[in-house]
Amino acid sequence: MSPVQRVRLDLAYDGTDFTGWARQPGLRTVQGELENALATVFRRAEAPPRVTVAGRTDVGVHAIGQVAHVDLDVGLLAAKGGPGRLGRRLNGILGPTSDLRVSHVTLAPEGFDARFSALWRSYEYRIADARAEQDPRRRDHTLWYPTPLDETAMEEAARSLTGLHDFAAFCRPREGATTIRTLQDFSWTRDDHGVLLGAVRADAFCHSMVRALVGACVAVGEKKFAATRASELREQRTRTSEFKVMPARGLTLIEVGYPPDAELAARAEQTRARRELAAELTEDAGID
Amino acid sequence: MSPVQRVRLDLAYDGTDFTGWARQPGLRTVQGELENALATVFRRAEAPPRVTVAGRTDVGVHAIGQVAHVDLDVGLLAAKGGPGRLGRRLNGILGPTSDLRVSHVTLAPEGFDARFSALWRSYEYRIADARAEQDPRRRDHTLWYPTPLDETAMEEAARSLTGLHDFAAFCRPREGATTIRTLQDFSWTRDDHGVLLGAVRADAFCHSMVRALVGACVAVGEKKFAATRASELREQRTRTSEFKVMPARGLTLIEVGYPPDAELAARAEQTRARRELAAELTEDAGID
Repeated sequence: MSPVQRVRLDLAYDGTDFTGWARQPGLRTVQGELENALATVFRRAEAPPRVTVAGRTDVGVHAIGQVAHVDLDVGLLAAKGGPGRLGRRLNGILGPTSDLRVSHVTLAPEGFDARFSALWRSYEYRIADARAEQDPRRRDHTLWYPTPLDETAMEEAARSLTGLHDFAAFCRPREGATTIRTLQDFSWTRDDHGVLLGAVRADAFCHSMVRALVGACVAVGEKKFAATRASELREQRTRTSEFKVMPARGLTLIEVGYPPDAELAARAEQTRARRELAAELTEDAGID
Repeated sequence: MSPVQRVRLDLAYDGTDFTGWARQPGLRTVQGELENALATVFRRAEAPPRVTVAGRTDVGVHAIGQVAHVDLDVGLLAAKGGPGRLGRRLNGILGPTSDLRVSHVTLAPEGFDARFSALWRSYEYRIADARAEQDPRRRDHTLWYPTPLDETAMEEAARSLTGLHDFAAFCRPREGATTIRTLQDFSWTRDDHGVLLGAVRADAFCHSMVRALVGACVAVGEKKFAATRASELREQRTRTSEFKVMPARGLTLIEVGYPPDAELAARAEQTRARRELAAELTEDAGID
């Protein structure tokens, strides 16, 4: 077997016209489009290179700082001009105004695994409420909310949700998967146009977790319940109908954080071991 | 005849799926959609209320601060609950995630004319060059440029173009229409994502003028010619092939400026008189 080189792909996409990240037969997905483009470059239509991603975004969720890796035959990669040329080739195949864009292609450092080396993921949720400018140019990645929302109360609720907790109240349940996460940061601000920006960061997210966390804050923002109720609901550890899981359109994966190169392999090993210990189905530990 | 009340409409739209502002049979235009929505509210399908606009945007050009007016029967407007309710009704008809949004509806002050009372129009042109993040979520209102652009040189060129001049070199010629304009402001900056923002303000623009001004700066930014060449080309007063008129997708009408209420009527009269003096076909003094 010829030696392989792991390559890091930094990606950005508008999730509107994708059926999420994961390849599915007959559906247009981000992974599918990317792997097809790789197959075109390397003329391997029968067996496209397989891509591993940091955050498996759901249907309609966007990304500007998604990270993936792919293992490529060293000789083939060199024949295509190396990583920089590969990025330009992929963008050429995807098209000049594509909804999927390869921002950077680089040789991955030793021990790098896009998924298991990651320390954290950060997301942003955009809401243009009745106090904000509702900009039609950005309607596909912003939720338009018809009433005014109280951002001070939302910020209070968000802060109270942070820390190491069982987030079962905010997760779609999965057999055998833990719902314990460290919510490292969660805050609300308004931008220059009055648009509410929810910034969320965690070691990892379970399925629909960000959109449920946002839903709890929106319920607080429209005075359905007090800010203090949000953490009470978290402590109940069961899903509730007191707030809604917000639509995917407002959600964007912003960044994935990794440790210094020297710690990449150890971090990946640690993540894998922890997941195995927890008897998780790693393929299904879906990250929103 | 029953008395009419002039109403000011503040509008925002994504120009991508519109064939420009002006109503055209069989085509989807901003004016057409807006007048149809007004006709629905007032049940006047056979004779929709006619809307007058400040900046007649071209095919594919966007707006966040467009201004228009419409004259409505006082009794009918009151029957529909007044201006605030009218805005909500129009947005209800246009739909919850429409590419055309009515931001505000207000009773127009005495003497207000959306077009002739305006003192200035400002536009923004967005370019994500090779140094910027190319965000697919914003691809429909940003030009992606494949090479790096020198924003310092572009800024120098832009500054040199400002002032009261004949902009024939940047205008699509029209029989009998003046090409003398006051370019009040023109500057280039990069935002937090490295995206180049060209801010342009003038009393009025002739057809394709903003996109031609941007084209001259882009030619400077990619070192096709020196910054000083831009004003030389302006002084030649004829169209040139040394730079390109840039695509509509990057262009957004940001704001329309009006004088204090007490001066609205005088300003409108002055604008009309100047146009008549210049023997212009006012309907065709197309503003980009």
